[in-house]
Amino acid sequence: MNDLFITAVRVIDLRFPTSRENIGSDAVNKDPDYSAAYCIIETNSDLRGHGLSFTLGRGTDLVVQAAEYLSRYAVNRTLSSITEDFRAFARQLTDDTQFRWLGPEKGVIQLAAAALINAVWDLYARVESKPLWQLLSEMEPAQLIKAIDFRYIDDALPPEEALDILTTRRQGQAERLALLRKEGYPAYTTSAGWFGYSEEKIRRLSREALADGWTYFKLKVGGDAADDLRRGHIVREEIGWVNKLMVDANQKWGVLEAVTRTRQLAELQPWWMEEPTNPDDILGHARIRREVPEVRIATGEHVHNRIMFKQLLQAQAIDVLQLDSCRVAGVNENLAIILMAAKFNVPVCPHAGGVGLCEYVQHLSVFDFLSVSASLENRVIEFVDHLHEHFVDPVRIRNGHYLLPEQPGYSIEIRKESLTRFAFPHGAAWSTSE
Amino acid sequence: MNDLFITAVRVIDLRFPTSRENIGSDAVNKDPDYSAAYCIIETNSDLRGHGLSFTLGRGTDLVVQAAEYLSRYAVNRTLSSITEDFRAFARQLTDDTQFRWLGPEKGVIQLAAAALINAVWDLYARVESKPLWQLLSEMEPAQLIKAIDFRYIDDALPPEEALDILTTRRQGQAERLALLRKEGYPAYTTSAGWFGYSEEKIRRLSREALADGWTYFKLKVGGDAADDLRRGHIVREEIGWVNKLMVDANQKWGVLEAVTRTRQLAELQPWWMEEPTNPDDILGHARIRREVPEVRIATGEHVHNRIMFKQLLQAQAIDVLQLDSCRVAGVNENLAIILMAAKFNVPVCPHAGGVGLCEYVQHLSVFDFLSVSASLENRVIEFVDHLHEHFVDPVRIRNGHYLLPEQPGYSIEIRKESLTRFAFPHGAAWSTSE
Repeated sequence: MNDLFITAVRVIDLRFPTSRENIGSDAVNKDPDYSAAYCIIETNSDLRGHGLSFTLGRGTDLVVQAAEYLSRYAVNRTLSSITEDFRAFARQLTDDTQFRWLGPEKGVIQLAAAALINAVWDLYARVESKPLWQLLSEMEPAQLIKAIDFRYIDDALPPEEALDILTTRRQGQAERLALLRKEGYPAYTTSAGWFGYSEEKIRRLSREALADGWTYFKLKVGGDAADDLRRGHIVREEIGWVNKLMVDANQKWGVLEAVTRTRQLAELQPWWMEEPTNPDDILGHARIRREVPEVRIATGEHVHNRIMFKQLLQAQAIDVLQLDSCRVAGVNENLAIILMAAKFNVPVCPHAGGVGLCEYVQHLSVFDFLSVSASLENRVIEFVDHLHEHFVDPVRIRNGHYLLPEQPGYSIEIRKESLTRFAFPHGAAWSTSE
Repeated sequence: MNDLFITAVRVIDLRFPTSRENIGSDAVNKDPDYSAAYCIIETNSDLRGHGLSFTLGRGTDLVVQAAEYLSRYAVNRTLSSITEDFRAFARQLTDDTQFRWLGPEKGVIQLAAAALINAVWDLYARVESKPLWQLLSEMEPAQLIKAIDFRYIDDALPPEEALDILTTRRQGQAERLALLRKEGYPAYTTSAGWFGYSEEKIRRLSREALADGWTYFKLKVGGDAADDLRRGHIVREEIGWVNKLMVDANQKWGVLEAVTRTRQLAELQPWWMEEPTNPDDILGHARIRREVPEVRIATGEHVHNRIMFKQLLQAQAIDVLQLDSCRVAGVNENLAIILMAAKFNVPVCPHAGGVGLCEYVQHLSVFDFLSVSASLENRVIEFVDHLHEHFVDPVRIRNGHYLLPEQPGYSIEIRKESLTRFAFPHGAAWSTSE
């Protein structure tokens, strides 16, 4: 059933000029043009696989070029030769003997590997005629294990233990699936609280989001301390104190400043403090968490691989693990991360937004609930209301919940017209002044 | 004196076909083609600044492209506008609002920043008519501090403390300089022990190196356990047990395997165990060090920024800090790392080899001795005897010591003929089959 032959991979530099409206602005990322290195896997059939890695504009060309290079490991082979030893394929990409020097497993080359690996999963799910979450949750535990590279994490999570988690958590899967079909997966909105928005706009958007059924709201902080508090209180005035408010500093502070600022922000009773400092600073996060025990600490969108997540868990540095669908090397590495989170009993609340991240992570969270964590407690998926109109199978939100994706694949395919229009630098969105 | 105007930056993709002879091979990097993204800063005078970042072949084009992009922050300004606020310049490069997403401060974009920053220092030292080590060691402590970005490390090393180290260690500088002029800086050789070399070749090269005056020798390990030991004993047979032997696994093992293998290798009485596991695994290194206390643990050549080094020190994970001249963002970030090492009392033994790394790091170690550590105890610079013939001012080794560089600059300028011949893909070394 699965003997497609991969004939080519096309990679597109896709950029949306979001910086023109301050969309996505925060304390560190001032002018993002939401962009992607976008891969299309061509086969000897009508089926194609789609995958992307999210970027902020300039430099997308580097990820595109790296993905073009890595595609040599996918082209001219059958899909089954990859999926039957998915771990080996992922390692070919992350362990190329010369490319590896540019990482290992971080930065540009890791983003490129993610786009390609995710595209293979999209293709695989289409061949199986299942949405990705279903493909994953119906795979045998032993088969899932074979997709995971345990190298460098087996001191924290031996394969046997991962297998054990997957096997025992099969119990109750049908009930959990029924619940998701009925209610969807809980979500939070970031759309009201961007850094570049005026106080008036934040107030209005908070009010509107509340009316739309949202109960979890995120606010960007990391500006002047008084401003941050004032903006936070505006949101609290609108949403009250029962609904949840999260704050996000996007890595703005050093460790000591983060301790001080997180303590100050505690008066807003934040549900979590996100990215208080540099994403590489495992011990720094652990210290902030220790010194401000009244606020839960979250990070992950810039955590570049399973080895870093392993340590965040080992060091008890985080209360919330915010995996990213394409910062680490795609679905395979995220399976490892989701399993480690379960082992350490830390909830996964994926990073989303950008372009395509919401479409991606809904599948991972659904799989997490069905097959790994078996819990919705303290778990929400980020939602940002941008750019979904470009997707063939966009996310569907109802009452602050993601509805289950139904179409085969990883939901990441972008409409042909959008691929043409926003191709950089020759698409109409860039070559003409609109 | 310093009012040069920077008119352009040229970046060259330079690759040496070293994989044809197994040069530089180890347990992970099987077929390196020693390469570099090579920057030339052009000015309105005859003076140019040279800088490079070392790579292994494929992917050098990515670093070249990133450096070309970052050069916008250097072009069309005076050199003094950079050097008078060197911290701000370095941060412009590492903190570009869109590029930063591809890191931050890691991988391709960090390597690119390093090449450019080092080229500026080379130019600065030439303007001052001093070798870089002399420029650095004669700078006022307050001026050095102004070149360092303390963001994300001030919890471990506040600027005042760094200033204090620099100020107190000025004492005795003249005597230390006299010592270096007389004897040079101690070094070790990696040239005898590459992974791809036969046992016979290792024996012969060890013998020759001993005859040349070397007393510290490094052997690549990470193959079959018995092979590693047998090769180690061959080196010991040649060099005896008074001379020092270091072993280097180049990240081959997971943490548990690294513990086992390091224990086995202890019978060789290694002076250190290098890169036993993944460079991101701070807690892993700490555990290996704790569980095998009889062997000193070293890492650093793949540690991508000061935040990671900070944690390796905070976690007491290493006995030897092996900074790299262009893996982190150049001289400025290495100043921070050298000062943190001093604060935590861990010796710096720089990573070298590749192409140009020996030329670079001699300056950093000399500065470390003159201005920061004030000690040679347990300190040696790596030496690998490859590709020096391409440099205008190559390292000079005598009796297992680096002699003090004397020419102005950072010693990294490559001969014009070599730049032409090894330019990829159109240089003669690549376009013709030689």
